[in-house]
Amino acid sequence: QGILERLDGGEIVIGDGGFVFALEKRGYVKAGPWTPEATVEHPEAVRQLHREFLRAGSNVLQTFSFYASEDKLENRGNYVAEKITCQKVNEAACDIAREVADEGDALVAGGVSQTPSYLSCKDKTQVKAVFRKQLEVFMKKNVDFLIAEYFEHVEEAVWAVEVLKESGKPVAATMCIGPEGDMHGVSPGQCAVQLVKAGASIVGVNCHFDPETSLETVKLMKEGLQAAKLKAHLMSQPLAFHTPDCGKQGFIDLPEFPFGLEPRIVTRWDIQKYARKAYDLGVRFIGGCCGFEPYHIRAIAEELAPERGFLPEASEKHGSWGDNLSMHTKPWVRARARKEYWENLKPASGRPYCPSMSKPDGWGVTKGARELMQQKEATTEEQLRELFQKHKI
Amino acid sequence: QGILERLDGGEIVIGDGGFVFALEKRGYVKAGPWTPEATVEHPEAVRQLHREFLRAGSNVLQTFSFYASEDKLENRGNYVAEKITCQKVNEAACDIAREVADEGDALVAGGVSQTPSYLSCKDKTQVKAVFRKQLEVFMKKNVDFLIAEYFEHVEEAVWAVEVLKESGKPVAATMCIGPEGDMHGVSPGQCAVQLVKAGASIVGVNCHFDPETSLETVKLMKEGLQAAKLKAHLMSQPLAFHTPDCGKQGFIDLPEFPFGLEPRIVTRWDIQKYARKAYDLGVRFIGGCCGFEPYHIRAIAEELAPERGFLPEASEKHGSWGDNLSMHTKPWVRARARKEYWENLKPASGRPYCPSMSKPDGWGVTKGARELMQQKEATTEEQLRELFQKHKI
Amino acid sequence: QGILERLDGGEIVIGDGGFVFALEKRGYVKAGPWTPEATVEHPEAVRQLHREFLRAGSNVLQTFSFYASEDKLENRGNYVAEKITCQKVNEAACDIAREVADEGDALVAGGVSQTPSYLSCKDKTQVKAVFRKQLEVFMKKNVDFLIAEYFEHVEEAVWAVEVLKESGKPVAATMCIGPEGDMHGVSPGQCAVQLVKAGASIVGVNCHFDPETSLETVKLMKEGLQAAKLKAHLMSQPLAFHTPDCGKQGFIDLPEFPFGLEPRIVTRWDIQKYARKAYDLGVRFIGGCCGFEPYHIRAIAEELAPERGFLPEASEKHGSWGDNLSMHTKPWVRARARKEYWENLKPASGRPYCPSMSKPDGWGVTKGARELMQQKEATTEEQLRELFQKHKI
Amino acid sequence: QGILERLDGGEIVIGDGGFVFALEKRGYVKAGPWTPEATVEHPEAVRQLHREFLRAGSNVLQTFSFYASEDKLENRGNYVAEKITCQKVNEAACDIAREVADEGDALVAGGVSQTPSYLSCKDKTQVKAVFRKQLEVFMKKNVDFLIAEYFEHVEEAVWAVEVLKESGKPVAATMCIGPEGDMHGVSPGQCAVQLVKAGASIVGVNCHFDPETSLETVKLMKEGLQAAKLKAHLMSQPLAFHTPDCGKQGFIDLPEFPFGLEPRIVTRWDIQKYARKAYDLGVRFIGGCCGFEPYHIRAIAEELAPERGFLPEASEKHGSWGDNLSMHTKPWVRARARKEYWENLKPASGRPYCPSMSKPDGWGVTKGARELMQQKEATTEEQLRELFQKHKI
Repeated sequence: QGILERLDGGEIVIGDGGFVFALEKRGYVKAGPWTPEATVEHPEAVRQLHREFLRAGSNVLQTFSFYASEDKLENRGNYVAEKITCQKVNEAACDIAREVADEGDALVAGGVSQTPSYLSCKDKTQVKAVFRKQLEVFMKKNVDFLIAEYFEHVEEAVWAVEVLKESGKPVAATMCIGPEGDMHGVSPGQCAVQLVKAGASIVGVNCHFDPETSLETVKLMKEGLQAAKLKAHLMSQPLAFHTPDCGKQGFIDLPEFPFGLEPRIVTRWDIQKYARKAYDLGVRFIGGCCGFEPYHIRAIAEELAPERGFLPEASEKHGSWGDNLSMHTKPWVRARARKEYWENLKPASGRPYCPSMSKPDGWGVTKGARELMQQKEATTEEQLRELFQKHKI
Repeated sequence: QGILERLDGGEIVIGDGGFVFALEKRGYVKAGPWTPEATVEHPEAVRQLHREFLRAGSNVLQTFSFYASEDKLENRGNYVAEKITCQKVNEAACDIAREVADEGDALVAGGVSQTPSYLSCKDKTQVKAVFRKQLEVFMKKNVDFLIAEYFEHVEEAVWAVEVLKESGKPVAATMCIGPEGDMHGVSPGQCAVQLVKAGASIVGVNCHFDPETSLETVKLMKEGLQAAKLKAHLMSQPLAFHTPDCGKQGFIDLPEFPFGLEPRIVTRWDIQKYARKAYDLGVRFIGGCCGFEPYHIRAIAEELAPERGFLPEASEKHGSWGDNLSMHTKPWVRARARKEYWENLKPASGRPYCPSMSKPDGWGVTKGARELMQQKEATTEEQLRELFQKHKI
Repeated sequence: QGILERLDGGEIVIGDGGFVFALEKRGYVKAGPWTPEATVEHPEAVRQLHREFLRAGSNVLQTFSFYASEDKLENRGNYVAEKITCQKVNEAACDIAREVADEGDALVAGGVSQTPSYLSCKDKTQVKAVFRKQLEVFMKKNVDFLIAEYFEHVEEAVWAVEVLKESGKPVAATMCIGPEGDMHGVSPGQCAVQLVKAGASIVGVNCHFDPETSLETVKLMKEGLQAAKLKAHLMSQPLAFHTPDCGKQGFIDLPEFPFGLEPRIVTRWDIQKYARKAYDLGVRFIGGCCGFEPYHIRAIAEELAPERGFLPEASEKHGSWGDNLSMHTKPWVRARARKEYWENLKPASGRPYCPSMSKPDGWGVTKGARELMQQKEATTEEQLRELFQKHKI
Repeated sequence: QGILERLDGGEIVIGDGGFVFALEKRGYVKAGPWTPEATVEHPEAVRQLHREFLRAGSNVLQTFSFYASEDKLENRGNYVAEKITCQKVNEAACDIAREVADEGDALVAGGVSQTPSYLSCKDKTQVKAVFRKQLEVFMKKNVDFLIAEYFEHVEEAVWAVEVLKESGKPVAATMCIGPEGDMHGVSPGQCAVQLVKAGASIVGVNCHFDPETSLETVKLMKEGLQAAKLKAHLMSQPLAFHTPDCGKQGFIDLPEFPFGLEPRIVTRWDIQKYARKAYDLGVRFIGGCCGFEPYHIRAIAEELAPERGFLPEASEKHGSWGDNLSMHTKPWVRARARKEYWENLKPASGRPYCPSMSKPDGWGVTKGARELMQQKEATTEEQLRELFQKHKI
């Protein structure tokens, strides 16, 4: 069954987690470029991570083609050996995902994301050509459906959707925005409307914000669609980091990004709350992004097991709400083998010299820059940066 | 070159990280039993983790035989299929470790750890028989050296060392204790002395406490050995969790153990500080335990690269002190591409409703129990538990 | 010069601090009733506090007549000796304030606040009669102007202003509301408009929220007045507690109210920031409420000394930005004798087992109650309480 | 009854709180010099604070003569008008304390504290002459007993006790040290022994550390006296600030000292725990130092009311454990009217950008300085400072 048959039939579809962050910690992706050449260099590592997500309950394996557009790979050229071409990276990504998907009951989704071409003000034709190049690989490898994800500007996301729709396959589209909307000030509701009008059957958010904030944004998208009398499935793939202190551009601007985020990592219990809340909101494509490890995805599958009627394979190695602690020799550890305990725990950081919140860096906190944006002197980040320098902000 | 040739020659030997915690998150180990049947059930997952540590710089691959003594596996019998015998688990552990070790320059160490037999008051002969059974596999598979690790009672550790020494191979021994010493009240210095006298060439600590606390304990061991005019190499494999609030029995008693420890996870920069401090203390076998992921091991190798003269393979995907952020489009992210930034960052938890410290559960905070231990009414945990119930503490 | 002459002339008028909290800590006011019988029982204590505020820079001494309406005093009757009548309490409050005001350059303001009569649904005539009784004393004692303060419902505040206007004296009116508006859902902007139309020459907020939040509310009031093309002076008398986690009803609902608020107490440097921000917003009557001690008021006077041209008397005993530390024997204490140090200090709580934020109790966090309020089933707190019980929320 | 009759008879004697900090906030004492010229300049303010402590339950009113030695007042000369001589300050301090003591059942204690003469290496005769000058006033004014307090070096404290003993009046002696002992490395136990041998009938600690740490120090003093078979009454007057992060020299070295300590202020409930713990340890002279306000002293009196059989006067305005909240209109505020609530509350700071602990400044954290002290190159702070500069630490 394809993605739309499943969603139309009322199924809950569980996405996968974040590849660049997980593989960075495993030693196969470089923070900064965040490019997926590991599909060629170390396919066994990519395969193993896909397999773990599959075991954890993922119904969709996204090709590890994040930032694998030709312009991005060139842009980060010093990191990528010449022989590892854009085409090879994307082809390998498709092959590995398909190989693992066939080990279980999962769909393969080919993914595109925001491009340097757009940010450097290339025109619509040029940007679309970039997407089309990746799409050709996805078509050749016959992925099951397509995802346009991690867009900060709805304009670019719409162009991506338009290209992907040329394939005739179902298209999902997620933006990495918060409740304040995209970088041009388009509200989440309007973003959703534009994406659906462009052809997306599934819309939502991914990355940049924590589960709670992301669901707020999806809620605004839902309301926008309802107001416009449009129908689409909802999708949510947030960070696995607590980021209540984020500004408009999300966790990139937090001082801890990307090498000091550890104290923000969410627990499996946080994810169970998220899965329940997403479900209650009507989201039926529920997954994760940066920070999501296999056990986080398993937590989604376990929380929604009553609705779905089954547990994922990896739950063989996991007791519900810690019930496997009930055989511990210490009575106070045994006392942790219950839902109430973990639901109510406020976990300590072990870091008494650290605060609980950070002030985000950058324009997010720069009064002058906010005003410039409100005065519409700047509509792209590029322009804002110029103004930023001009005004010495 | 064997482990002793390396250490005697002044080399820094880098250990590996924590298998049970890493594989629990990946879906292959069950928290609670913490047994390593994955070596038989999912060898590809174990192999991949070994490979990641090897790439990260590990010079020693420990067989994934933690808690793989026969009595422990039987004790946790409901989790392990009948066909997965103790022997098979240990053999597979050896085979996988050897396979990956041969991909690089690493030694294979066969490991034994504390046994249920000891805790249930079996005598010396019975406990030694348990260790001997695992040793037979290690000899058959011809591991390079042996490690007795994760002992809370030096008496049991000494028995383990005595058995392992029968092999003629070098033996390392680490205890999971803090500065207060073992569960019978033997000081770290005395523990080290007894272990060396029993035949260990390398002594130190693993697990239960954070890097800083663990090094305090190793320092006490070093001083004990000096006072006794004994020589041994020092070894340290701590948690990758901040645990300044631990009691005598370490992180087991923290309310967050084992499913809410996320906010305590140490950063790569914390590990660089640890590696430097360990080196300055004279520790030359430096690795990690629960919570250590490949990128933490890489951080040891990167911090000590000046001394060692080379970087690990995985550093191809990592810039020193964030230097790969220098090409970011946002000026404030570029500003993070320097050592001072990450060294001084006090990372926020994003959890304003959580405290920074927890009060440990259990005897650690029970005044009556402490007094009972001081009055020597109880010398084993078992006895303490009885007294605990008798006195209704 | 009267209050309006001063404000119309562009002067900054500094208010006083919070009497009930300060005198509770000194042992003269009972938390819970919060009534001001100390004016009769211990006039020397009230006089001394007035004097400290005067020395600290207050230009207005408010009669200590908070909650001194007849219905409130009767309501709390068990705490007040029979002989201490409403009239005596108010008369003594006027006498003490006048005595101290004459020691310096300060005005005396007679104050009324919200009444039990309103909350128990007495009608306009009855509620106005309560205010009128206090006003009679203020007229007899010839206070300089009048303040209607600590109102949660603008309706009652308007009635108070109407009564006070009968006197012919200038009237100020402050509500204890946040940016969400009054308890009936009237926005801050609308509240300000209604109060000015009722005759208030000065409007703003007092109590219930921290300085930052209070200024947000005053900003909304200012915008409301501008939109309605009305003119009035702005006034701000916030808490001296950090309350970023407050719900709509302010600090009453915080779990720490009223006996565990210590870690929230603001520093003198926080107050300097507040004073500057208030000034920049156009507020010219700047004071404080609960938690404000004399040194907080002095911090307002010191921050605005450049604009006012003079320091208060109590600054004889205070160096600007810690400059009196420059003679300390320890070099690191001397290093604190500068503005940058105190401006940037993030003071630690010394409480590692405590969180930084609390979830407010009560309706503020009760989803059902919020919905009931939105559905307009409840318009008064009284009605909400009934619904609360009916719906078992 | 004199102080010794009371203590010998088993009475609990309640001390008073901290004058310099309380009067600094009220506008009468300058932080930095911390001198008590307010006894002459503003006797009404000093009198009122004495009265508040008396009402709160203090059985001892200490003359406000802290830092009122001639050498100190001269040293801070720029702050003190010429006409305010050392003698006048001390005489006024005695007169005011006596006047208020006679309003209730309290003793007057004349106090001396550490001198600049000692720190600048004046000899025993010179230092004793300084104490003797203050003693002359205390004798002329016939105080009830004498306290030598706030000494960092036991040598100077012993000299003070020897001088005070010349009077024939009972002498108490408290040092501002923690468990690590005095600045020359003399342990608390040894300090206590020396003070008792010099003639002190009551020994203990005051200032510099929080209640919990201070009681640890008193416990060590008690053990020292027991080991030496000496008898003395125990006394404790700690800070009302949480300072778990202090180094050897106490709160002076915390970055928050003295103008950012607010988040550390202890609650009344913290004080009740302290009073109980002090009582259980055998301390019978229980008071406070910097940060102690009248309501903190009242909390001691309330906690120990069962043992003493009566409540202080100020408890007329205070319900036990918040019981006066039981009449509040909101059910969740009523729910706070019980002991369990306040005992278990972990109060939030409202400061999400602040940590819970600070690293102390100064020698306390300077490795080199610690080593210098251990190498005994420096035995006085003065010498240490020289070495500090010499070694560029």
